[in-house]
Amino acid sequence: MKTNFLKDQIISKNSFLCLGLDSDIDKIPSHLLNEFDPVFSFNKLLLDALNELIVSVKINTAFYEANGSKGWETLEKTIDYINKEYPNLFTIADAKRGDIGNTSDKYAQAFFSHMKFDSVTVSPYMGIDSVEPFLKHKDKHTILLGLTSNKGANDFQISTNSDQNLFKKVLIKSKEWQNSENLMYVIGATKSSFLKQVRAIVPESFLLIPGIGAQGGNLAETFKNGVNKNIGILINSSRSIIYAGNDKDFVKKSYNEAKNLQSEMRILLNNLND
Amino acid sequence: MKTNFLKDQIISKNSFLCLGLDSDIDKIPSHLLNEFDPVFSFNKLLLDALNELIVSVKINTAFYEANGSKGWETLEKTIDYINKEYPNLFTIADAKRGDIGNTSDKYAQAFFSHMKFDSVTVSPYMGIDSVEPFLKHKDKHTILLGLTSNKGANDFQISTNSDQNLFKKVLIKSKEWQNSENLMYVIGATKSSFLKQVRAIVPESFLLIPGIGAQGGNLAETFKNGVNKNIGILINSSRSIIYAGNDKDFVKKSYNEAKNLQSEMRILLNNLND
Repeated sequence: MKTNFLKDQIISKNSFLCLGLDSDIDKIPSHLLNEFDPVFSFNKLLLDALNELIVSVKINTAFYEANGSKGWETLEKTIDYINKEYPNLFTIADAKRGDIGNTSDKYAQAFFSHMKFDSVTVSPYMGIDSVEPFLKHKDKHTILLGLTSNKGANDFQISTNSDQNLFKKVLIKSKEWQNSENLMYVIGATKSSFLKQVRAIVPESFLLIPGIGAQGGNLAETFKNGVNKNIGILINSSRSIIYAGNDKDFVKKSYNEAKNLQSEMRILLNNLND
Repeated sequence: MKTNFLKDQIISKNSFLCLGLDSDIDKIPSHLLNEFDPVFSFNKLLLDALNELIVSVKINTAFYEANGSKGWETLEKTIDYINKEYPNLFTIADAKRGDIGNTSDKYAQAFFSHMKFDSVTVSPYMGIDSVEPFLKHKDKHTILLGLTSNKGANDFQISTNSDQNLFKKVLIKSKEWQNSENLMYVIGATKSSFLKQVRAIVPESFLLIPGIGAQGGNLAETFKNGVNKNIGILINSSRSIIYAGNDKDFVKKSYNEAKNLQSEMRILLNNLND
């Protein structure tokens, strides 16, 4: 399991930061638009500067698909670059896929075999046979949507007219699936009060936590409620880091933003040992 | 709304058949592997032969993504070919996407703006702000997963320990969303007994119905329970048509398979007028 390795990386780097590459051609600094592949150049500059501050990279497929097959080429180049230059980074395809078995098999092939991601985010809506094709890949991790950080999480995940919230059903049910020890879960930091309930159901699992920064979650509170004996949390930050600046200085501003978060993480991790 | 147009097509072609292009490089006839783009050639041959028997084409993105950016090129070529040669076909990107608002915006851009699909399938798990970015495109249709045709539908969509099945909550809630009149729903034929319950909630909407054929659903029963005043149903068939043959004769076998389904549909439609 790569999560043991992940724990070691967290301890050695004093960081549980995941860099979210939601890299949008319409938002990157304009001087990069002269490059052959502007989004790849943007990603490469950020990775080269920030790799020591982070333990994971999450690539949001939507921002690449918006440019069609050319965007997919950028996606392929980015994951290949990370695997070659920074093989210690835990890579996440944030793709939120999920379909009937023979189709999920193909999505798993896309992200685990064709591209060499360590993990992929998957939607639980279609149940067991939509998720197990990902879990079949024992050397990979499947990150199931549990409780997301957006407003719409209230529509179905947290339901008021039911015995049990849907996100809890998802967590409980998923533990019955094959190779469920390779599951991780998306749990939004904006719902930090729910983290204790999550930990009661999946005490061992790694959680991918979005919502710190642009979406308003609090890091210290999230850490307190989510940490386990393996640390067990990855905090993702995308927009607040990658768009910290918008000129030729942008990498420095992104670095400072990531460094601030990592410094907070260092303190939280050090306090664990007190 | 394109669904008015869709009704006219159904009446004029005596068909509510949707052809599912789950085109798998590992399954197409081997003589096509010498072509420059084997999967595109496969799709083109099927479309050229079957277009008069069908009113819609559903392209399952997973089978293209499995080949990375090259697969996305095939996807782009296929949708461009349909839009140019067979503009009367209602096109569906079966992508099952859905993410926080700014990300769903990008997925909508990929399928509605970059590629010119008429519709895309979307997962409801993340709620309102994950779906409305698709619905913003008023001239397009958003096909929400309701009740799927697979075994895993029993895990969450049909729940035993709750006041109301999740798929019903999804249908009811979705009617509150902006431009909800442009919603369509995926309702699996293998759960035909639920179709009446679905129609009680969304009497007007078009339903995309998979599960006839390879997955075991019954066409006449599905039609009886699902039809509305606009016909209102599209029956998708993928594997049982496109893999009907596996040699140089394969197009003829696929044609015969589609023709059998369309003949059944003609009878069902004609009986409506009795």
